Amino acid sequence: MNLPLKFTTDGLIPAIVQDASTGRVLMMAWMNATSLQSTLDTGLMHYWSRSRQKFWLKGETSGHTQKVVKFHADCDMDTLLFEVEQTGGACHTGHQSCFFQEIDRNGNFLEVTETRLFDPAETYAAKH
Amino acid sequence: MNLPLKFTTDGLIPAIVQDASTGRVLMMAWMNATSLQSTLDTGLMHYWSRSRQKFWLKGETSGHTQKVVKFHADCDMDTLLFEVEQTGGACHTGHQSCFFQEIDRNGNFLEVTETRLFDPAETYAAKH
Repeated sequence: MNLPLKFTTDGLIPAIVQDASTGRVLMMAWMNATSLQSTLDTGLMHYWSRSRQKFWLKGETSGHTQKVVKFHADCDMDTLLFEVEQTGGACHTGHQSCFFQEIDRNGNFLEVTETRLFDPAETYAAKH
Repeated sequence: MNLPLKFTTDGLIPAIVQDASTGRVLMMAWMNATSLQSTLDTGLMHYWSRSRQKFWLKGETSGHTQKVVKFHADCDMDTLLFEVEQTGGACHTGHQSCFFQEIDRNGNFLEVTETRLFDPAETYAAKH
Protein backbone atom coordinates (compact mmCIF):
# COMPACT_ATOMS: atom_id res chain seq x y z
CA MET A 1 0.00 0.00 0.00
CA ASN A 2 1.38 3.35 -1.01
CA LEU A 3 -1.36 5.84 -0.16
CA PRO A 4 -0.34 9.47 0.49
CA LEU A 5 -2.22 9.57 3.78
CA LYS A 6 -1.45 12.11 6.47
CA PHE A 7 -1.11 10.44 9.85
CA THR A 8 -0.86 12.45 13.09
CA THR A 9 2.52 12.84 14.79
CA ASP A 10 1.49 9.74 16.78
CA GLY A 11 1.12 7.82 13.51
CA LEU A 12 -2.66 7.67 13.65
CA ILE A 13 -5.56 8.57 11.36
CA PRO A 14 -9.27 8.77 12.26
CA ALA A 15 -11.64 6.28 10.66
CA ILE A 16 -15.36 7.00 10.49
CA VAL A 17 -17.48 3.87 10.23
CA GLN A 18 -20.88 3.87 8.59
CA ASP A 19 -23.41 1.07 8.16
CA ALA A 20 -23.36 0.30 4.43
CA SER A 21 -27.04 -0.59 4.23
CA THR A 22 -28.66 2.04 6.46
CA GLY A 23 -26.13 4.89 6.24
CA ARG A 24 -26.08 5.24 10.03
CA VAL A 25 -22.76 6.44 11.42
CA LEU A 26 -21.71 3.76 13.88
CA MET A 27 -18.45 4.97 15.44
CA MET A 28 -15.17 6.72 14.94
CA ALA A 29 -11.90 5.09 15.93
CA TRP A 30 -8.21 5.50 15.18
CA MET A 31 -5.97 3.44 12.91
CA ASN A 32 -2.24 3.25 12.51
CA ALA A 33 -0.61 2.06 9.28
CA THR A 34 -0.57 -1.56 10.49
CA SER A 35 -4.26 -1.63 11.39
CA LEU A 36 -5.15 -0.04 8.05
CA GLN A 37 -3.08 -2.63 6.20
CA SER A 38 -4.70 -5.46 8.20
CA THR A 39 -8.12 -3.99 7.44
CA LEU A 40 -7.42 -3.99 3.71
CA ASP A 41 -5.79 -7.43 3.79
CA THR A 42 -8.57 -9.15 5.72
CA GLY A 43 -11.62 -7.01 4.85
CA LEU A 44 -12.33 -6.69 8.58
CA MET A 45 -11.94 -3.44 10.51
CA HIS A 46 -8.81 -3.22 12.68
CA TYR A 47 -7.95 -0.22 14.85
CA TRP A 48 -5.39 1.18 17.23
CA SER A 49 -6.73 1.67 20.73
CA ARG A 50 -5.26 4.87 22.14
CA SER A 51 -6.47 4.08 25.69
CA ARG A 52 -5.09 0.53 25.68
CA GLN A 53 -2.19 1.29 23.28
CA LYS A 54 -3.07 -1.86 21.46
CA PHE A 55 -3.73 -3.19 17.95
CA TRP A 56 -7.36 -4.20 17.87
CA LEU A 57 -9.53 -6.36 15.61
CA LYS A 58 -13.04 -5.03 16.09
CA GLY A 59 -15.16 -7.93 17.34
CA GLU A 60 -12.26 -10.05 18.57
CA THR A 61 -13.94 -10.33 22.00
CA SER A 62 -17.59 -9.61 21.21
CA GLY A 63 -17.83 -11.29 17.82
CA HIS A 64 -19.25 -8.02 16.49
CA THR A 65 -16.99 -7.72 13.48
CA GLN A 66 -17.23 -5.12 10.73
CA LYS A 67 -16.80 -6.26 7.14
CA VAL A 68 -15.54 -3.58 4.77
CA VAL A 69 -17.85 -2.73 1.87
CA LYS A 70 -16.41 0.59 0.70
CA PHE A 71 -13.40 2.69 1.64
CA HIS A 72 -12.93 6.40 0.99
CA ALA A 73 -10.28 8.92 2.01
CA ASP A 74 -11.13 12.60 2.29
CA CYS A 75 -9.82 15.51 0.22
CA ASP A 76 -7.02 16.24 2.71
CA MET A 77 -6.03 12.58 3.02
CA ASP A 78 -6.23 12.84 6.79
CA THR A 79 -9.57 11.14 7.51
CA LEU A 80 -10.93 7.77 6.38
CA LEU A 81 -14.50 6.62 5.83
CA PHE A 82 -15.47 2.96 5.80
CA GLU A 83 -18.88 1.60 4.90
CA VAL A 84 -19.28 -1.76 6.63
CA GLU A 85 -21.56 -4.68 7.29
CA GLN A 86 -21.84 -4.62 11.07
CA THR A 87 -22.44 -7.86 12.95
CA GLY A 88 -24.31 -7.17 16.21
CA GLY A 89 -23.84 -3.69 17.63
CA ALA A 90 -20.87 -1.40 17.06
CA CYS A 91 -20.87 0.16 20.52
CA HIS A 92 -19.36 -1.42 23.62
CA THR A 93 -22.42 -0.19 25.55
CA GLY A 94 -24.63 -2.58 23.60
CA HIS A 95 -26.09 0.00 21.26
CA GLN A 96 -26.07 -0.30 17.50
CA SER A 97 -24.18 2.98 17.14
CA CYS A 98 -21.85 4.81 19.52
CA PHE A 99 -23.85 7.94 18.65
CA PHE A 100 -26.98 6.99 20.58
CA GLN A 101 -26.95 10.10 22.79
CA GLU A 102 -28.78 13.01 21.23
CA ILE A 103 -28.23 16.53 22.58
CA ASP A 104 -30.54 19.50 22.12
CA ARG A 105 -29.72 23.09 21.14
CA ASN A 106 -29.34 24.05 24.80
CA GLY A 107 -26.71 21.38 25.38
CA ASN A 108 -29.04 19.06 27.31
CA PHE A 109 -29.11 15.31 26.85
CA LEU A 110 -32.32 13.92 25.41
CA GLU A 111 -33.68 10.67 26.74
CA VAL A 112 -32.19 7.61 25.02
CA THR A 113 -35.15 5.61 23.78
CA GLU A 114 -33.24 3.15 21.63
CA THR A 115 -32.89 -0.28 23.19
CA ARG A 116 -29.56 -2.09 23.44
CA LEU A 117 -28.85 -4.91 20.99
CA PHE A 118 -26.83 -6.83 23.56
CA ASP A 119 -25.87 -6.82 27.22
CA PRO A 120 -22.25 -5.68 27.40
CA ALA A 121 -21.60 -7.40 30.74
CA GLU A 122 -22.60 -10.73 29.24
CA THR A 123 -20.96 -10.19 25.87
CA TYR A 124 -17.56 -9.15 27.15
CA ALA A 125 -17.36 -11.11 30.43
CA ALA A 126 -18.12 -14.44 28.79
CA LYS A 127 -15.22 -14.17 26.37
CA HIS A 128 -12.40 -13.42 28.84
CA MET B 1 -23.65 24.49 28.05
CA ASN B 2 -22.37 22.01 30.56
CA LEU B 3 -21.69 18.87 28.54
CA PRO B 4 -19.12 16.40 29.93
CA LEU B 5 -17.24 16.30 26.63
CA LYS B 6 -13.64 15.15 26.39
CA PHE B 7 -11.57 17.59 24.36
CA THR B 8 -8.00 16.81 23.29
CA THR B 9 -5.09 18.43 25.12
CA ASP B 10 -5.34 21.11 22.40
CA GLY B 11 -8.95 21.78 23.44
CA LEU B 12 -10.46 20.21 20.32
CA ILE B 13 -13.05 17.56 19.53
CA PRO B 14 -13.76 15.95 16.14
CA ALA B 15 -17.13 16.59 14.53
CA ILE B 16 -18.46 14.24 11.85
CA VAL B 17 -20.94 15.90 9.52
CA GLN B 18 -23.64 13.94 7.72
CA ASP B 19 -26.28 15.09 5.25
CA ALA B 20 -29.57 14.82 7.15
CA SER B 21 -31.63 13.86 4.13
CA THR B 22 -29.33 11.44 2.28
CA GLY B 23 -27.19 10.10 5.13
CA ARG B 24 -24.01 10.79 3.17
CA VAL B 25 -21.00 11.61 5.33
CA LEU B 26 -19.84 15.02 4.12
CA MET B 27 -16.73 15.84 6.13
CA MET B 28 -14.98 15.70 9.46
CA ALA B 29 -13.60 18.83 11.08
CA TRP B 30 -12.50 19.95 14.53
CA MET B 31 -14.30 22.14 17.03
CA ASN B 32 -13.21 23.89 20.16
CA ALA B 33 -15.62 24.83 22.95
CA THR B 34 -16.26 28.24 21.38
CA SER B 35 -17.10 26.87 17.95
CA LEU B 36 -19.40 24.26 19.50
CA GLN B 37 -21.18 26.94 21.51
CA SER B 38 -21.54 29.13 18.39
CA THR B 39 -22.89 26.13 16.47
CA LEU B 40 -25.55 25.50 19.10
CA ASP B 41 -26.38 29.19 19.48
CA THR B 42 -26.77 29.89 15.76
CA GLY B 43 -27.74 26.48 14.37
CA LEU B 44 -24.93 26.83 11.81
CA MET B 45 -21.77 24.72 11.89
CA HIS B 46 -18.67 26.50 13.22
CA TYR B 47 -15.23 24.87 13.47
CA TRP B 48 -11.67 25.43 14.54
CA SER B 49 -9.23 25.30 11.65
CA ARG B 50 -6.04 23.58 12.84
CA SER B 51 -4.10 24.62 9.72
CA ARG B 52 -5.14 28.27 9.90
CA GLN B 53 -5.50 28.32 13.73
CA LYS B 54 -8.74 30.15 13.23
CA PHE B 55 -12.39 30.12 14.33
CA TRP B 56 -14.40 29.31 11.25
CA LEU B 57 -18.04 29.61 10.22
CA LYS B 58 -18.53 27.00 7.51
CA GLY B 59 -19.70 28.84 4.41
CA GLU B 60 -18.52 32.29 5.48
CA THR B 61 -16.60 32.62 2.17
CA SER B 62 -18.40 30.16 -0.10
CA GLY B 63 -21.95 30.63 1.16
CA HIS B 64 -22.09 26.86 1.62
CA THR B 65 -23.42 26.85 5.15
CA GLN B 66 -24.52 23.82 7.15
CA LYS B 67 -27.71 24.09 9.19
CA VAL B 68 -27.86 21.75 12.19
CA VAL B 69 -30.71 19.24 12.18
CA LYS B 70 -29.55 16.77 14.83
CA PHE B 71 -26.62 16.57 17.21
CA HIS B 72 -25.27 13.45 18.90
CA ALA B 73 -22.23 12.75 21.07
CA ASP B 74 -20.69 9.30 21.18
CA CYS B 75 -20.48 6.87 24.10
CA ASP B 76 -17.03 8.14 25.11
CA MET B 77 -18.05 11.82 24.80
CA ASP B 78 -15.00 12.45 22.62
CA THR B 79 -16.57 12.58 19.15
CA LEU B 80 -19.56 14.54 17.85
CA LEU B 81 -21.97 13.78 15.01
CA PHE B 82 -24.05 16.45 13.33
CA GLU B 83 -26.78 15.85 10.78
CA VAL B 84 -27.09 18.98 8.67
CA GLU B 85 -28.83 20.61 5.74
CA GLN B 86 -25.91 21.39 3.43
CA THR B 87 -26.13 24.38 1.09
CA GLY B 88 -24.02 23.77 -2.02
CA GLY B 89 -21.11 21.37 -1.53
CA ALA B 90 -19.31 20.60 1.72
CA CYS B 91 -15.87 20.14 0.17
CA HIS B 92 -13.51 22.98 -0.74
CA THR B 93 -12.66 21.03 -3.93
CA GLY B 94 -16.20 21.59 -5.22
CA HIS B 95 -17.47 18.11 -4.40
CA GLN B 96 -20.59 17.44 -2.38
CA SER B 97 -18.62 15.38 0.15
CA CYS B 98 -14.95 15.48 1.15
CA PHE B 99 -15.04 11.68 0.84
CA PHE B 100 -15.22 11.56 -2.95
CA GLN B 101 -12.05 9.49 -3.37
CA GLU B 102 -12.71 5.77 -3.22
CA ILE B 103 -9.84 3.35 -2.63
CA ASP B 104 -9.79 -0.34 -3.44
CA ARG B 105 -8.62 -3.27 -1.34
CA ASN B 106 -5.12 -2.99 -2.82
CA GLY B 107 -4.78 0.63 -1.75
CA ASN B 108 -5.27 2.02 -5.25
CA PHE B 109 -7.34 5.10 -6.01
CA LEU B 110 -10.44 4.46 -8.10
CA GLU B 111 -11.41 6.95 -10.74
CA VAL B 112 -13.55 9.80 -9.39
CA THR B 113 -16.65 9.85 -11.55
CA GLU B 114 -18.69 12.29 -9.46
CA THR B 115 -18.87 15.77 -10.92
CA ARG B 116 -18.13 18.89 -8.91
CA LEU B 117 -21.05 21.00 -7.69
CA PHE B 118 -19.06 24.22 -8.02
CA ASP B 119 -15.77 25.56 -9.28
CA PRO B 120 -13.61 26.26 -6.23
CA ALA B 121 -11.48 28.89 -8.00
CA GLU B 122 -14.58 30.89 -8.81
CA THR B 123 -16.35 30.34 -5.50
CA TYR B 124 -13.45 31.30 -3.27
CA ALA B 125 -11.65 33.88 -5.42
CA ALA B 126 -14.77 35.95 -5.99
CA LYS B 127 -15.37 36.46 -2.28
CA HIS B 128 -11.93 37.69 -1.26
